[in-house]
Amino acid sequence: MTKLFNDPARFTEDMLVGFLDANSRYVAGVPGGVVRAHKTRPGKVAVVIGGGSGHYPAFCGTVGPGFADGAVVGNIFTSPSTEEAASVARAAHGDAGVLLITGNYAGDVMNFGLAVTALRGEGVDAHYFAVTDDIASAPKGEEAKRRGIAGDFTVFKCASAAAEEGLDLAGVVRVAEASNAATRTLGVAFDGCTLPGADHPLFTVPEGQMGVGLGIHGEPGVAEEAMPTAAGLAGTLVDGVLGDAPAGAASKRIAVILNGLGRTKYEELFVVWGEVARLLRDRGYEIVEPEVGELVTSLDMAGCSLTVMWLDDELERYWRAPADTPAYRKGAAAVDDSGDRRSDADIRTATAAPAVGERSDDAGRDGGRTVARIFEALAAMLADAEDELGRIDAIAGDGDHGRGMVKGSAAARAAAANAVEQGAGQGSVLAAAGKEWAAKAGGTSGVLWGALLSALGTRLGDTGRPDAATVAAGMRDGYDALVQLGGAAPGDKTMLDALLPFVEELERRVADGERWQQAWAVAAQTAEDAARATADLRPRVGRARPLAERSIGTPDAGATSLAMCARTVAESLTVKGDSPQ
Amino acid sequence: MTKLFNDPARFTEDMLVGFLDANSRYVAGVPGGVVRAHKTRPGKVAVVIGGGSGHYPAFCGTVGPGFADGAVVGNIFTSPSTEEAASVARAAHGDAGVLLITGNYAGDVMNFGLAVTALRGEGVDAHYFAVTDDIASAPKGEEAKRRGIAGDFTVFKCASAAAEEGLDLAGVVRVAEASNAATRTLGVAFDGCTLPGADHPLFTVPEGQMGVGLGIHGEPGVAEEAMPTAAGLAGTLVDGVLGDAPAGAASKRIAVILNGLGRTKYEELFVVWGEVARLLRDRGYEIVEPEVGELVTSLDMAGCSLTVMWLDDELERYWRAPADTPAYRKGAAAVDDSGDRRSDADIRTATAAPAVGERSDDAGRDGGRTVARIFEALAAMLADAEDELGRIDAIAGDGDHGRGMVKGSAAARAAAANAVEQGAGQGSVLAAAGKEWAAKAGGTSGVLWGALLSALGTRLGDTGRPDAATVAAGMRDGYDALVQLGGAAPGDKTMLDALLPFVEELERRVADGERWQQAWAVAAQTAEDAARATADLRPRVGRARPLAERSIGTPDAGATSLAMCARTVAESLTVKGDSPQ
Repeated sequence: MTKLFNDPARFTEDMLVGFLDANSRYVAGVPGGVVRAHKTRPGKVAVVIGGGSGHYPAFCGTVGPGFADGAVVGNIFTSPSTEEAASVARAAHGDAGVLLITGNYAGDVMNFGLAVTALRGEGVDAHYFAVTDDIASAPKGEEAKRRGIAGDFTVFKCASAAAEEGLDLAGVVRVAEASNAATRTLGVAFDGCTLPGADHPLFTVPEGQMGVGLGIHGEPGVAEEAMPTAAGLAGTLVDGVLGDAPAGAASKRIAVILNGLGRTKYEELFVVWGEVARLLRDRGYEIVEPEVGELVTSLDMAGCSLTVMWLDDELERYWRAPADTPAYRKGAAAVDDSGDRRSDADIRTATAAPAVGERSDDAGRDGGRTVARIFEALAAMLADAEDELGRIDAIAGDGDHGRGMVKGSAAARAAAANAVEQGAGQGSVLAAAGKEWAAKAGGTSGVLWGALLSALGTRLGDTGRPDAATVAAGMRDGYDALVQLGGAAPGDKTMLDALLPFVEELERRVADGERWQQAWAVAAQTAEDAARATADLRPRVGRARPLAERSIGTPDAGATSLAMCARTVAESLTVKGDSPQ
Repeated sequence: MTKLFNDPARFTEDMLVGFLDANSRYVAGVPGGVVRAHKTRPGKVAVVIGGGSGHYPAFCGTVGPGFADGAVVGNIFTSPSTEEAASVARAAHGDAGVLLITGNYAGDVMNFGLAVTALRGEGVDAHYFAVTDDIASAPKGEEAKRRGIAGDFTVFKCASAAAEEGLDLAGVVRVAEASNAATRTLGVAFDGCTLPGADHPLFTVPEGQMGVGLGIHGEPGVAEEAMPTAAGLAGTLVDGVLGDAPAGAASKRIAVILNGLGRTKYEELFVVWGEVARLLRDRGYEIVEPEVGELVTSLDMAGCSLTVMWLDDELERYWRAPADTPAYRKGAAAVDDSGDRRSDADIRTATAAPAVGERSDDAGRDGGRTVARIFEALAAMLADAEDELGRIDAIAGDGDHGRGMVKGSAAARAAAANAVEQGAGQGSVLAAAGKEWAAKAGGTSGVLWGALLSALGTRLGDTGRPDAATVAAGMRDGYDALVQLGGAAPGDKTMLDALLPFVEELERRVADGERWQQAWAVAAQTAEDAARATADLRPRVGRARPLAERSIGTPDAGATSLAMCARTVAESLTVKGDSPQ
C-alpha cells in the first residue's frame, strides 16, 4: 500500500522535488520531467524516454551518461501530456535530432506522437517509437499490439547506448526497432498495488493464486494459476518467454532481466534466478550480464517478470555499454581491485580452519587426553544434574538450562575425544569442544560456554605442559570473553557471579605459589558459595521485570551449573593424581 | 508477504545460489558467505561485514572494490555461526588483518567475537566492531546498547573505504569507531514483514498507525503514532535524529540516508526526501551525497528510516569514495558526458515552445485572423449541438462527447484569439488552438482533434497565403496523424469514417483545379453523408461487445461532430466572401 504522500493530487510533483534534490549530480528538472544535468553534446542524438510514473527506477532514474538524455514524467500510471513530452524533448535536444520512446500504451502513443508532430513543426528532427515486449498482451503474429513492460529497459538501454556511440537518428531508431524485435517479457503478479491516497488496491489476486501476464499499471494478469514454488515459477517464465522467441532468433547469447515489481524482494528474486539461470543454460543459452532486481516497478505490486533479449554483436555491445545514472550504474568505478581472480582451490584452502594436531607435541597431546577425560566427567555430571538445573531455571527463565548444558557437554565430550584421536594438544581439544558446545547447546549460555573454552584453549596452546600462571590467565581470558560477548556485568545474576570469584581466587592462590590444581579446588568452593549467593540478586539483563522479581530467592541457574562444573573439574584432577604440573 | 521460495528451510542457500550466479563478476561463494571475486591485495586490511540475511542489499550486495571484502550470510534475521564468520574472514584475509563488523545484536556480537578469538588463535590479526546507530533502542548515555540498523551502511562504507585507502587494522578500527560515533538513525514501520513459508507477518501495525523506532528484524516500533503525512513524517525523523546529535558534533556537513525497508517504494521515499532535505537545510546543514533508496531492508516490511552521519574531513572523504559492488556503485563510469552543465536560463530557453508570431508575415497574419473567426463559429455551433451529440454518444459510449467538443472548441477559440493578438500566422493559430483543444476537451477525441489541427497548422505555416494543394495536403496530414495516433482504421465506426471521404473529395476536386473553398463545401456534404452511414457500422475499437451491438443503427458521435464542423467551416468561408485564395 502506498502510504507516504502529502496531497495525493500532488504526489508526482512532490516526488520529483525529492528525486531532483537527491540526484542533482545527474539530473535537472524541466517542465514535464527531467534531463541530464549536462547539455547534450554536439552531434549526439538525444533519447527521451517516459510515460506515467510509479515505475521507478523507470523512467527518470535512468537519465544520465550512457542512458537516456531526458525522461518525461507523467502522473502515476498516466501518460504525460503532449506539451510535457515536447518540453522535455526540446530541453534534451542538442543538434542531431531526438528519439522519443515509451512503452506501447494508447495515451503515450498519442501524446508522444503529437509531440513529435509539434517538434517537427519547430524544425527539430524527431521520431517516436513504442516498445512491445509483453507476450501476454497479444498473441504471436500481433506483436505490434503488445504492451511495453520490463523490456522497456533493454530497448531504452540499447537505443541510448547507440546514441552515445554516435549513431545518427535513423541509426538510433534502427537499434530501438532491432532491440524491441529481439525482446520478450512475461510477468506474474501475486498482489496488486495501491495508488497514493486510495483505500483499496487496483486489483487483488486470490490467496494462493498467481496472475500470469501482469501489466505494470495495476492491470491484473490474463490468467490465474495456483501459486507455484520458486522453481515452478522459473519454469513458467522460461517456458513462456522462450516459447515466444522472435522468428529467426538464431543466437544463443541472451541478455536477461528478472525484474521485481516492488514488493517482491531481492532475496526472493535471487531464489527464482538460481533456477531461471539453470534452465536457460540447460537449453544451451549463454547469459550475458543479467540484471536481477527492480528496474521497472509498479508501486508496491507483488510480482516479477522475466525478460530475454536475443543478442547479435551490435545489441550485445549496447547492452554491455557503461552507464551512470541515479538508479543504474554499469562499468567499473575507479577503484583498485588488482588482485588475481580467486580459483575454487583458493577458496577451499583459504576458508578451512587449520588442521587439528598439526602443531602439538607429546606434552600437549598428554594435556589433550586430560582435557578429554574432564569432558567425560562433565557430561556425566550434567546428565545427572539436568532436572535440578531445569527446575532452578524455570523460576525466572524458560527452564531449558539443564537441557542445554546436557546437550552442550555431550557434544563437547564427543568433539574432545575426536580431537584427541587426531593428535590434538590441550588447546585444540578445548577449542574443538568449545565449538561443538556452542553449536549444539543452543541459546546464549551455549555460546558463552563455547567462548570460555575457546579462550582458555587459545591461552594453553598445543605444546608443552601449561604452568599455573598460564592456567589462571586462561580462565581470566575466558571471563573477559564472556563479559565482552554477553553484555552483562557482575551483579547481574548470571554465570559471571560465580565465575569472577572463581577466577580471582585462582589467580590469588597461584600468585602465592600454590599448585594450580590445589588452587582450583579451593576456587571451586568459592564459586559454589558465590552461586548460592546469587539468590539475593535480581537479574538486570534480558528479563522482563515480573520474572526478574520472581527470581529473588532462587540462585541463578547459569552460576549454579558453572560452579558444579568447576567442582567436577577439581575432582577429575584429584582422581588423576595431580599428574599435570 | 514473502511469496517465492522452494523449501523455506533452504531459503538462504537458494538465495545465495542466485545471487552468486547473477553477480559472478563481483563475488565468489565461500563456506558461510561471499568474498570478492578477486583476492585481497597485499597490505590491504580486509573488511568482513555481515549478520543475518533478509536485508538485501545488506550485506552481500555491497561486497566489491571500495566496499567490503566479504560478507557473512546467516539465515533470514539470524546470526551466522562462529564458524561461518571465521570461514569468510579467512577467505577475505590477505596479509594485513581483518575487521569483522556487524550491527549490535547479541547473536552477532557473540559469534563474530568468538570468530575473532578463533582467528587470533590461528595467527590472523582480527578485530570485531558492532554498529549502534538506532537511537530508539536505548536512551542517550547508553549508546553502546543500541542496535545497528541503516547506519550499518555508513559505518561499513567508511571503514571499507579506509581499508581501501591503505590504513592498517588499527586505523580501520578507528574509522569504524569514529563513523559509528557520528551516525544516528531513527526508523518507522507501517507494516510488518513475513518470513518465507510463514502465514503471518512477524508483527502488524494497526491501520492508520505508524510504529516509531522499528528494528530491521521484524521488531515493531517502540511507540505508536497516528500515520502522518509525508511532510509530518519528515519532521518526526529530522527532529528525532537531530535531537540525538552526538556530543560535540560541531560540523554542519552531513551524509544522509533515507532508507526504504522494502515495501515502501522509491516514489514515496522521494516525496519524504523533498521535505527532509528542506528541513535539514533550514537548520543550516549541508547535505553531502545523500542516498535515497533501499540500502538495508527487512524483507517486505513497510517503513523507512533516516540516518545522519556528521562529517569531518576524513569521514567525508570515505563517504564520497568510489565503490563498485553488485548493488551499490559510486564514482563515474567511463562515459563521455562532456557537455556544459545546464543553467536555469538554459532550461527556460530550451523548453519553451517557439514564441508565437515570430515567423509570420502579413498574409500569414491575415490567415490567422480567418482561422480565429472560424473557431468562433465552431465554438458557437458546438455549444448548440452539445445535447444532440451527447444523446448520440450515450447509445454506445458514456455520453460525454458533446461536453468534450464544447470544452475543446471553447478553449481553442480563446487560444486562437490570443495567438492572433500576438501576431501569429495561420499555422501558429491552428497549433495554439489544437494544443488547447487537446488539453481542455479531455478524452481521446480531444487529443485527436488537437492532432488534426496541429498537423494542418504545420503544413499551412505562418507565411503567405496557402494554395489549394497545401490546404488539401494539410487535411491529409491531419488524417494520417489520426490514423497513427488513434489505432483505428476506416470502417471502425469512428470520426475517420467521415474524415477520410472528406479528405478524398477535397483532394480530388483540388486536383481537378477547383478553388479549395468550393471543394471544401462539397467535401463537407460528403462528410455528412458518410457520418450518417456510420449507423450501419459496428465499432471495432475500444468498446465492449454488448455496447458495440447496441450502437448499430445509430451514427457515430465523433463522425457526426466532425461533419458538423466541416459544414461550419464551409459556411464561415462563404460568409467571409471567399477572401482567402
